[in-house]
Amino acid sequence: MKPFKMAAREAGRKDTLIEVPGLERTVLIGEGYCTIIAGPCAVENRDDYLETALKLKAMGIHILRGGLFKPRTSPYSFKGLGREGLEIMDEARSLTGLPLISEVMDVRDLDYMAEHVDLIQVGSRSMQNFSLLEEVGRMDKPVLLKRGFAATIEEWLLAAEYILNRGNSKVILCERGIRTFETYTRNTVDIAGVALIKVLSHLPVIVDPSHATGKWKIVTPVAKAAIAAGADGLMVEVHPEPDRALSDGKQSLTLANFQKMQEQIINLAEMEHKIIL
Amino acid sequence: MKPFKMAAREAGRKDTLIEVPGLERTVLIGEGYCTIIAGPCAVENRDDYLETALKLKAMGIHILRGGLFKPRTSPYSFKGLGREGLEIMDEARSLTGLPLISEVMDVRDLDYMAEHVDLIQVGSRSMQNFSLLEEVGRMDKPVLLKRGFAATIEEWLLAAEYILNRGNSKVILCERGIRTFETYTRNTVDIAGVALIKVLSHLPVIVDPSHATGKWKIVTPVAKAAIAAGADGLMVEVHPEPDRALSDGKQSLTLANFQKMQEQIINLAEMEHKIIL
Amino acid sequence: MKPFKMAAREAGRKDTLIEVPGLERTVLIGEGYCTIIAGPCAVENRDDYLETALKLKAMGIHILRGGLFKPRTSPYSFKGLGREGLEIMDEARSLTGLPLISEVMDVRDLDYMAEHVDLIQVGSRSMQNFSLLEEVGRMDKPVLLKRGFAATIEEWLLAAEYILNRGNSKVILCERGIRTFETYTRNTVDIAGVALIKVLSHLPVIVDPSHATGKWKIVTPVAKAAIAAGADGLMVEVHPEPDRALSDGKQSLTLANFQKMQEQIINLAEMEHKIIL
Amino acid sequence: MKPFKMAAREAGRKDTLIEVPGLERTVLIGEGYCTIIAGPCAVENRDDYLETALKLKAMGIHILRGGLFKPRTSPYSFKGLGREGLEIMDEARSLTGLPLISEVMDVRDLDYMAEHVDLIQVGSRSMQNFSLLEEVGRMDKPVLLKRGFAATIEEWLLAAEYILNRGNSKVILCERGIRTFETYTRNTVDIAGVALIKVLSHLPVIVDPSHATGKWKIVTPVAKAAIAAGADGLMVEVHPEPDRALSDGKQSLTLANFQKMQEQIINLAEMEHKIIL
Repeated sequence: MKPFKMAAREAGRKDTLIEVPGLERTVLIGEGYCTIIAGPCAVENRDDYLETALKLKAMGIHILRGGLFKPRTSPYSFKGLGREGLEIMDEARSLTGLPLISEVMDVRDLDYMAEHVDLIQVGSRSMQNFSLLEEVGRMDKPVLLKRGFAATIEEWLLAAEYILNRGNSKVILCERGIRTFETYTRNTVDIAGVALIKVLSHLPVIVDPSHATGKWKIVTPVAKAAIAAGADGLMVEVHPEPDRALSDGKQSLTLANFQKMQEQIINLAEMEHKIIL
Repeated sequence: MKPFKMAAREAGRKDTLIEVPGLERTVLIGEGYCTIIAGPCAVENRDDYLETALKLKAMGIHILRGGLFKPRTSPYSFKGLGREGLEIMDEARSLTGLPLISEVMDVRDLDYMAEHVDLIQVGSRSMQNFSLLEEVGRMDKPVLLKRGFAATIEEWLLAAEYILNRGNSKVILCERGIRTFETYTRNTVDIAGVALIKVLSHLPVIVDPSHATGKWKIVTPVAKAAIAAGADGLMVEVHPEPDRALSDGKQSLTLANFQKMQEQIINLAEMEHKIIL
Repeated sequence: MKPFKMAAREAGRKDTLIEVPGLERTVLIGEGYCTIIAGPCAVENRDDYLETALKLKAMGIHILRGGLFKPRTSPYSFKGLGREGLEIMDEARSLTGLPLISEVMDVRDLDYMAEHVDLIQVGSRSMQNFSLLEEVGRMDKPVLLKRGFAATIEEWLLAAEYILNRGNSKVILCERGIRTFETYTRNTVDIAGVALIKVLSHLPVIVDPSHATGKWKIVTPVAKAAIAAGADGLMVEVHPEPDRALSDGKQSLTLANFQKMQEQIINLAEMEHKIIL
Repeated sequence: MKPFKMAAREAGRKDTLIEVPGLERTVLIGEGYCTIIAGPCAVENRDDYLETALKLKAMGIHILRGGLFKPRTSPYSFKGLGREGLEIMDEARSLTGLPLISEVMDVRDLDYMAEHVDLIQVGSRSMQNFSLLEEVGRMDKPVLLKRGFAATIEEWLLAAEYILNRGNSKVILCERGIRTFETYTRNTVDIAGVALIKVLSHLPVIVDPSHATGKWKIVTPVAKAAIAAGADGLMVEVHPEPDRALSDGKQSLTLANFQKMQEQIINLAEMEHKIIL
C-alpha cells in the first residue's frame, strides 16, 4: 500500500488536466497535451527579457518562465531582482499574452507573487518546506512542484499530497534531476521516474532538462527522451547570450538552438498524439 | 579556494566556543568541551516529558531537546503539538534548569519560539531554506544547523555562511547522516565529514546518531565514533518507552541504555581531554 | 583534458559502426542504425528458449540474448545452466540465423564461449575486472561493455579504453542504470549519460531498460526515451511467461508486450532516420 | 529474514577469531583483539619497502601490506610491479617476521600468490567477482574481503557467504568507504555499517581509513572512530615520502604521523579492553 492517497491513480483514472489562465488563452497541462515552458533562468534586465519573451512566443511556447528569487547555495551569489523584477514580468505578460511562472521560496512572498504570476513554482530545495506546501495548498492557483534533488518518488508524491490535502488540486510535477555520484552531469535525470509517475499518479509531470543536466549540449536529447517517456511537457532555460547570463549560462540554450529543439519536440509530440500547437 | 569565508578556519585559529544560556548555568559548545543534548523526539505529553527531563538531567546531560513542529514526509503523520507544547517545555526548563532546543521550520514561528527556546534548531530539510537562514542570522540566539540529508560539506558550510553573514556568529553544525543507496540504516553517518569540518571550519560540530542510523542498537557505537573522530558533542533521542513513541521510536534509546552510553562517552571525552561533567 | 584517448570522439568524427556476424547476415551497431537485442534473462530450457527465439526473430530483432552464467548476489540463487546451455544456444543460432550474445564473467571461460557466441557481454559487476577487460581486448570479437552500476561515465569510458588499448576496437557500450537512493526502481537509468556518451565518444551506446528499471510496466517508455536520447539500440528481456522465470521475471516483457514496444520503437527509429528493419 | 546464513550471527554467538600465521608468531583478528595492518599502497622499490617495513614493525604493527597488482581505473596508470615484486615481499617477510597481505584480482594469480602471501585481499572492485570468491573459498588461507564501493551491507555479507559456503571460514571484512554525492572526501566511510556488521555477523571487520577518505589529514580521526565503533582493527597506508608515491600519496601517512596515530589507537584499544600489544 502506497502512503499517498489523493495523488494516487486509481485503476482506470485518466491524467488530470490542469488549466493555467493566460491573457490570450488558457494553457492546458496534462492528458493529451505537450506543454512547453521556456525562458531565461533569472529576469536580469528589462530589454533582454522582453525581447526573449517575444521571440519565444513566436516559436510556440505556452508559458514564460522568469526567476525573481533565485535559491543560491552561496550568500555571495546573484539572488535575482526580487520584487523589483515584478514590473518586468507584468510587462512581459501584457506584451506576449503568455502566462508566467516564477519560483516562490518564502511563505511571506506568496500573496503578492500570486497577483503577478499564473503558475507558482515550488523549487527543488523547497519540496519539503511543509509550511510553504500548506500555504500553496490553500491557494486557488496552479502549482509546479519540482522534485527535491534527493527526494524519492514517494516523498515527491507525498509533498504533492500536502498541497492536494489542503484543497488545491492543481498540482503539476516537475522532474529536475537527482543527486548521484556522477559528476559529468549536474544531476541525474530520472527518466524512469517520470514513466513511473504516470503509472502511480494521475498528476501531470514535466521535465526540466536544463537544471537536470547542467550542459546545454545534451538538453535537446534529454528533452526528447522526456516526451518519449511520457512526460506532459518541458521547462527549458533559454538565454539570448548564455555566456553573459548571471546564472546558469552553461545549461541555457540559445534562441537558435531552442528553435531546433522545438521542431523536434513538435514532431515527437505529434507521433505521441499530443497537442502541442 | 573554498567559497565559504566566515565559516572557514584560518591557519592557527582555534575552535569557536559558543554559549547557550540556561537558568542554572551557561552551557558551552566547542573548543575543549563535549556537550550532550538529549530528550524525546517529540514532546508528546506533559508527565512523560517532565519525568524524562528530570532523569536525563540526573544523568548529566547539558541541553534538553523536544520537538514541537515535526517535519513529516506525509501530511497524515503526527506533526507535533506545535504551540500547545510550549508550556510543557517552559515547565521543563523551570524544573530542570536546562537550556532547551527545538526545531523551527517556518519563519513566522521564529519570534515566539525564540522566547521559549535557548537554542534554535534548523532541521535537515530546512538547511537550504534561505529565508529561514537569513532570519535566524538576524537573531541573537545560538543556532544548531543540521546538515541536509543530501547536502555536500561545502553546501553545509555555505548554509552556515548565510547565518554568519547576517551577523549571528553562534552557529553549531550537526551531522545527521546523508542519503545513500544503503537501506539497512536510515542514512549514512558521514564520520569523515565530521573530521573534515574540524579541518575546514572553526565552528563546533556535533553528531545525531539517532536520526542518522534509525536503529537504537547502533546508536551507542556511532556516538562513540563521533567523539573519537573529534565531534564536540552529541544529540541523542531518548524515550521512556520507545515502543510507545509517536515518532522515531525505533531509533530512541531507553533511559537505561542512554545511561550506559553516557558512561562510555564520559570515559572517551576524558581520554580526549574534553570537559563533559 | 579527459583521461580517455582511444574512446574519445575527436572533432568531426562520426560514430563507429560495428559488425556482428550472423549466419544469415551481419548485424550493424552504431552510426545510422537502431539495433534490437532481445531474449530471456537466462537460458532455462531448450523448448522455451527456441520457441521464444523464433518468435522474437519474426518480430524483427537483430541479436538474441541468453544468459548462461548469471552473476547472482547470493550463492543460493539460480546461476544459469553454464556450459550445459551452450548446445541450446548453438541450436538457437542455427534455427534463427541470429547472432548470439551472452555474458562472460571468468577469464577462463572466454575461449570456449567465443566459439559459441557472436557478441561477448561484459556485465555490470565486471566492468572493472581489469584482467577480463584485457583478455577481451586481445580477442577479435565484438564486446558489449555494460556500465558498472556505480561507475562514473569517465570510469566507463576508461574501461572501454582498456579493451581498445589491447587492440580490440569493437566495443559497444550499454547503459543499464546506476545505483541511487531511489527504491521504487531497481536502478536509475542515466539517460543524460547516454546523450553525453554521444558527445564524448565515437563508440555506439545502447540501453537495457529491463535491468535498469526492474519493472516491466515502464520498460517501453524507457526504451523509447533511450532511442529519443540518441541511443543506437536496446537490449530487452522477454520471457514467454515472466511469472515462471527463474530470474528477473518482474522486469521481463511478455512476447505480446514486446511486440507493442517494437512497433513504437520502429516508428521512433524512422523519425530519427535510423535503419531498424 | 536475512538472506545470508553462514555469515549471520546467531543469538549469543561470539565474534569469530581468525589466525593469520607469521614467521615469528600467529596474528589474531577478531574477538578481543585490535589488529593493525599497515604499509605502502604499492611495492615500488626494494630499499624503500624494506626500510618502511622494519620501521612499521618497530611501531607495533601486526601485518604488513604491499600492493603488487593495483586495480587502476585507467590503463595508463602505474599498475604495480606484479610478480616481480614478490621477491621483495618475500624478503620483507623474512626480515620482519610479519605476515603479509596483498591483493589478488585474477583467479589465475591465486595459486602462486598464496605461496608468498599470508592473507589474501579481495579488493573493492572484485567484491562481486564471483569466480574469484569461489576459488578463494576453496583455499585454506585467510581472506580480507573489502566492501564494494557501491555494495550494500547485505551484498557484502552475501559475498562473504560465497567464500564461507565453499569451505573457507577465515573471512575478515574490511570497510573502505562507499560512493556518495560528497566530493570533498574520496568515499564516505560507513561507520554505522561497521557497527551494524557486529550486530548482524560474527565475522571480524576492520576499517581502511586511507582509501575511504583519500585525505591523510583525517585518517587518524577516522581510524579512532572505527575502533570506537567496534572495528576489530585497521588497515592504513603509510609511505616514507607520500609526495613521491606512485599511487595514493595524498592519503598516505608519513611514518611520523603513523606513529602518532598508533599511540592514540593503543590508548583507545585499551579503553575498549582489546589486546593490541
